[in-house]
Amino acid sequence: MAVDFSPEPVVADLAQRTAMFVRDVVIPIEERYQGVVRSEETRAALQREAKDAGVFAPHAGTEFGGHGLDMRGRAAVFEEAGYSLLGPLALNIAAPDEGNMHLLDAVANTSQKERYLRPLAAGEIRSCFAMTEPTPGAGSDPSALTTRAERVAGGWRIDGRKWFITGADGAGFTICMARTSGEPGDPGGATMFLVDAGTPGMTMIRHIDTLDESLFGGHIELLFDACVVPDDAVLGEVDEGFRYAQVRLGPARMTHCMRWLGIARRAQDVAVDRAGERRLFGSRQAELGMVQQMIADNEIDIAASRGLIMRACWELDDGHAAAQSTAIAKTFCAEAVWRVVDRSVQICGSLGISGDLPLSRFLREVRPFRIYDGPSEAHRWAIARRVVHRNDKANG
Amino acid sequence: MAVDFSPEPVVADLAQRTAMFVRDVVIPIEERYQGVVRSEETRAALQREAKDAGVFAPHAGTEFGGHGLDMRGRAAVFEEAGYSLLGPLALNIAAPDEGNMHLLDAVANTSQKERYLRPLAAGEIRSCFAMTEPTPGAGSDPSALTTRAERVAGGWRIDGRKWFITGADGAGFTICMARTSGEPGDPGGATMFLVDAGTPGMTMIRHIDTLDESLFGGHIELLFDACVVPDDAVLGEVDEGFRYAQVRLGPARMTHCMRWLGIARRAQDVAVDRAGERRLFGSRQAELGMVQQMIADNEIDIAASRGLIMRACWELDDGHAAAQSTAIAKTFCAEAVWRVVDRSVQICGSLGISGDLPLSRFLREVRPFRIYDGPSEAHRWAIARRVVHRNDKANG
Amino acid sequence: MAVDFSPEPVVADLAQRTAMFVRDVVIPIEERYQGVVRSEETRAALQREAKDAGVFAPHAGTEFGGHGLDMRGRAAVFEEAGYSLLGPLALNIAAPDEGNMHLLDAVANTSQKERYLRPLAAGEIRSCFAMTEPTPGAGSDPSALTTRAERVAGGWRIDGRKWFITGADGAGFTICMARTSGEPGDPGGATMFLVDAGTPGMTMIRHIDTLDESLFGGHIELLFDACVVPDDAVLGEVDEGFRYAQVRLGPARMTHCMRWLGIARRAQDVAVDRAGERRLFGSRQAELGMVQQMIADNEIDIAASRGLIMRACWELDDGHAAAQSTAIAKTFCAEAVWRVVDRSVQICGSLGISGDLPLSRFLREVRPFRIYDGPSEAHRWAIARRVVHRNDKANG
Amino acid sequence: MAVDFSPEPVVADLAQRTAMFVRDVVIPIEERYQGVVRSEETRAALQREAKDAGVFAPHAGTEFGGHGLDMRGRAAVFEEAGYSLLGPLALNIAAPDEGNMHLLDAVANTSQKERYLRPLAAGEIRSCFAMTEPTPGAGSDPSALTTRAERVAGGWRIDGRKWFITGADGAGFTICMARTSGEPGDPGGATMFLVDAGTPGMTMIRHIDTLDESLFGGHIELLFDACVVPDDAVLGEVDEGFRYAQVRLGPARMTHCMRWLGIARRAQDVAVDRAGERRLFGSRQAELGMVQQMIADNEIDIAASRGLIMRACWELDDGHAAAQSTAIAKTFCAEAVWRVVDRSVQICGSLGISGDLPLSRFLREVRPFRIYDGPSEAHRWAIARRVVHRNDKANG
Repeated sequence: MAVDFSPEPVVADLAQRTAMFVRDVVIPIEERYQGVVRSEETRAALQREAKDAGVFAPHAGTEFGGHGLDMRGRAAVFEEAGYSLLGPLALNIAAPDEGNMHLLDAVANTSQKERYLRPLAAGEIRSCFAMTEPTPGAGSDPSALTTRAERVAGGWRIDGRKWFITGADGAGFTICMARTSGEPGDPGGATMFLVDAGTPGMTMIRHIDTLDESLFGGHIELLFDACVVPDDAVLGEVDEGFRYAQVRLGPARMTHCMRWLGIARRAQDVAVDRAGERRLFGSRQAELGMVQQMIADNEIDIAASRGLIMRACWELDDGHAAAQSTAIAKTFCAEAVWRVVDRSVQICGSLGISGDLPLSRFLREVRPFRIYDGPSEAHRWAIARRVVHRNDKANG
Repeated sequence: MAVDFSPEPVVADLAQRTAMFVRDVVIPIEERYQGVVRSEETRAALQREAKDAGVFAPHAGTEFGGHGLDMRGRAAVFEEAGYSLLGPLALNIAAPDEGNMHLLDAVANTSQKERYLRPLAAGEIRSCFAMTEPTPGAGSDPSALTTRAERVAGGWRIDGRKWFITGADGAGFTICMARTSGEPGDPGGATMFLVDAGTPGMTMIRHIDTLDESLFGGHIELLFDACVVPDDAVLGEVDEGFRYAQVRLGPARMTHCMRWLGIARRAQDVAVDRAGERRLFGSRQAELGMVQQMIADNEIDIAASRGLIMRACWELDDGHAAAQSTAIAKTFCAEAVWRVVDRSVQICGSLGISGDLPLSRFLREVRPFRIYDGPSEAHRWAIARRVVHRNDKANG
Repeated sequence: MAVDFSPEPVVADLAQRTAMFVRDVVIPIEERYQGVVRSEETRAALQREAKDAGVFAPHAGTEFGGHGLDMRGRAAVFEEAGYSLLGPLALNIAAPDEGNMHLLDAVANTSQKERYLRPLAAGEIRSCFAMTEPTPGAGSDPSALTTRAERVAGGWRIDGRKWFITGADGAGFTICMARTSGEPGDPGGATMFLVDAGTPGMTMIRHIDTLDESLFGGHIELLFDACVVPDDAVLGEVDEGFRYAQVRLGPARMTHCMRWLGIARRAQDVAVDRAGERRLFGSRQAELGMVQQMIADNEIDIAASRGLIMRACWELDDGHAAAQSTAIAKTFCAEAVWRVVDRSVQICGSLGISGDLPLSRFLREVRPFRIYDGPSEAHRWAIARRVVHRNDKANG
Repeated sequence: MAVDFSPEPVVADLAQRTAMFVRDVVIPIEERYQGVVRSEETRAALQREAKDAGVFAPHAGTEFGGHGLDMRGRAAVFEEAGYSLLGPLALNIAAPDEGNMHLLDAVANTSQKERYLRPLAAGEIRSCFAMTEPTPGAGSDPSALTTRAERVAGGWRIDGRKWFITGADGAGFTICMARTSGEPGDPGGATMFLVDAGTPGMTMIRHIDTLDESLFGGHIELLFDACVVPDDAVLGEVDEGFRYAQVRLGPARMTHCMRWLGIARRAQDVAVDRAGERRLFGSRQAELGMVQQMIADNEIDIAASRGLIMRACWELDDGHAAAQSTAIAKTFCAEAVWRVVDRSVQICGSLGISGDLPLSRFLREVRPFRIYDGPSEAHRWAIARRVVHRNDKANG
């Protein structure tokens, strides 16, 4: 037992093979589609390639055809996959499927795992996670949950409205969070339901037009109107939904960070390439002090993000609650990745904001990360509260 | 003579009427088109409305149908027009036409004014300004100009490649900067040419896909290949092009700032509206400290930008060179506007990055402003050099 | 009536003479004392020199021997005086005397003016303003005022504790704010009292050791213990103290900004001098990109601060409330001045943190300005509230 | 082999005992002296206490009476020691002695170790490291070294001027870097000499007055004027001084970071204590959003610093060059610690800049860390160059 940053050899190997796969196979496809893929055929083709390359589903249990990596192992591999916008889709580790697999693995019963987790892990179906609601419903404050599920004969009837449900268009099933007891504002009383695609009463209202566009299946507004599901649609226990959401949340935050850290590295590489080629005022652009400052700050932001992610992952693997370390890592990383991409755009000048480079696409994709999965302000609020609480306790 | 911030009554009146026009007429159209208009019919309709409202062409001389405002007057009115992405188009003060009118007014001869400036000021035609070139040509460093114009019988033959030429698609004429003497890197030797649309040898290669999309006529890559223009196509004097570019540059920087300052104010208003309506953790969102900090910082950035713009405009009106004050204003304002829009997005959360609010569109539109018209780094370099030079002189 | 940034000729002349006086007379003395003067003799000598140079008391009314400048005039002259830490002392425009003169001029009756304002304006005595109290008393929230004054025969008895009372050691009189009605937390009920030095019951407890050390007369903790003052010690009306505090506050904030802006300019000049002399890695340090960035950012911060100050001063002179514009200017300026001094230190390296240059002294002196006269957080809170209130009203 | 953040039990135990020792023994002494100790008696007393507590010399080899910690172990323990300004002095791990012990351990021969390292490790003597020179000598650019050592009979004659030599007043010996071949600007040709206190020709010119004051023995300007040392005064090999400086530099940077990270944590604790006690506008100050933001940002900065330090330490222990990771950690940490202390001051308001709390003392002590051991700009320059070089190689 001692502090050690060496990855396990099997992880190092998978990370390296993932890096090569992304560079050789995924990036050419990303460039063809300018980072945004909308067809199931392309998704399937990417995943076939990943399977052939032996890099598919690094996070899924071996019994579900994956590599069974723990969070630290994911940190190394997901960052490499995230080096392209399409890498996570190819490896079947994109949001929200990856987080849903984690959740199902932790909470689903055996038959639910066979029915939902197995095909999801294999990439045969996709899924979504329906929690966020229009104001004044669940958002930064999950306890504001207003969608209700009421007991009916043989099951539950769900009524409510959800939005920004990533991946919902085409998803094989939805994990829907609904209130089974209490009132909006109560800290408990939520239940998770597995709702199959096509269940009457669950309707896709619209694709919400968003700044980011690369997440497969869009950001959807969903209506639950007398949507009836059977008893065995309950995931885990009734009224335990908020607790399960926490199970999903910490790791899901970290895997977001891992993937976006890959994009930050890519942006830096694109910018350094360009700055190394271009001559300005008699020097290579990469030798101008203000450009060096941006390159160095990118490198610092990337290194600091990686350190915070790895620490939080170790805590999660080690069985800690990790609420503070994941919140810290998520807040820092979301802002650091944004700064890195923004500086990379700036280094490349007008080319940086053009489609000739992928940087302005990356800028669009990473901006929401400071909002999704909890805006930075909500995380800072929670971080500070824990610090103050810790201090109150220390002072008796 | 004393420091005074009161606008002239005629300016105050025009600014107020512009604000009403934008709110009542322009914004509904902006919302319909999500800020991006591509049809000449819509442009013409907007301009007709502006003429009817008596707010058209505030900057143009009265002999050309305008209101003849000086730079300080423009600062007040353009900011109001800029409150919508389409306001400047409606008033005929959008880039690059507005800057070109300024240039033609200062440099063109009488017949050129009749032929180009008059219809341009009336909104009958549009124009573009072809200076920027692909690496290693003219960009942050204009003296790197590589496009050449050589004397031929009765005129000049222009050869070279230009890109990011805003508004070129559909422009009635192009002001093309070409080297008539010296080599790339020489600080002189450029000439400006008025090239009519349809002149053989001037070809539009492509629309460059860019993060911003609201500037009418796109960002175009242009090829000049044995493009021959007559002698009277020379704007001003041969070899004086760099000097004229400076004439255009200072005011054009400021009018960019004015327009984008309008967008910053709009973003702040949208965000404050939203934060005032939404309840979170038991308070109005607008009463949460971290949100108040963002609102206050927006207000500070807006006020500081306005002060710097106004100072530079006064210097320009007063006949100063204003190179330092316009560089300072442009650098600060480009970054401040960006911060304001980014904070406004953050205040609005996932709604902020959706098409349900105009903020993520604004974010896309203002990002390039830190690059166009000189990236912040080039301005900082110039600002510092002037400071050091001033200090060297003071120290003998 | 039109926007104009030209100073009145008489102001421009006084500003220029002040600049020369500071450079030739004050800075040599500042260097001798490393910026911190504690003897009345030196203060008197500095003021004699200022009188001889015709630059003394630019703010005081001509009937009190001053130049009678309005706020805009002060902005120009005070900045020049502030170029040295001792300039304001020499011109008799240092805090808190300068603010107290403004207050007395606005609120005192004729006999109070003769007794207090006249000798104060002449530099014969000094004064202090006793408002701030230890927690949980008056501070960021003035309404928390706990010091009480109760009616006794022929006057008032004051009881309470004050701290951070600048200039109290050696002050000829104290303007003490005490509650004459209501309870801590009530928005009204305060009265200002003029308390002569030596009045029994007013005791100096200690000099509070602070990071800054250049304000003459220190930061003092004062005890009022059964301190009885006569009826004519009431300044203005009973129970109107909070209103008068506002009269003092807006202008006092701005004059702080003016003086510290002078120090920011000085810091920049010191750093640019040094960067211009020193060679590093084969260039003048002033030609290294990262140094240029710091120099440019200093210049931008200085220009933006000046613009905000001038705007607020114009509003004050024009009779506006100016609460928003003074809060904006104070918040921005306090942080900008700090950034400028910090960057200047950084440019100068280890020399910058040594006593061989005045910069680390400046760093110590300007840090508290982000706290004194309202911490930035309190100003941001107030700025945001006004924005939200304005928006609420606009939305009906 | 796998990523692991658990400290070794022996390290965890020593860290915990160090924390208790600092809290119970050192901080009361720090408070008595306001953080600045100048007497050898107090130093000796502190070190006796540390020996009694079994926490003395955690870094020194067991053969020299220390605990023999590697860099990762130091990271944990030094941070606890750094929680007080006097903790490092008590444990004998203050700069520059701690770095010098590391250097001697790596480079000195057996007899030099007995003569210099043994008493230094025991706290019997102190030492200094004389490298930095006045402009245009060695500083950010070590190769500018101008101090010369020339062969004389039986030894070397050293001539030159050094400044900012920390701890030189009272040091038992000086490690002096002098040029034995080549010219200023050459990348090689330096030699390290061990110069005993009292050697003729080595004179202390002055204590340089600096913003920071807590490093024992001051920052000294030293003159070497025909200072003759014997042959065995050479440390390691002639002309290898720059290489040895690198041996010292990486770890010395990290131990600086560790110690200052302790002060950052202390500042945060002081501020959170205060914010938890104080009521403002009807809430605990610690529950106001803007204060929460500062508390959270402190926590994030502390966590990110710790992660970067630990990573670099692991690389050093693992035998990597670690030039990039130590530069990244030093740059980030120096700025993060500064931000943390600055925010902590701001949270505490006027109390924060007073001597009633230790925060303004901390602010003074940590500011130079952004300059000492390489200013942030020099590190950013080096970081960027390595990135560009790496990229150039990858692109062939």
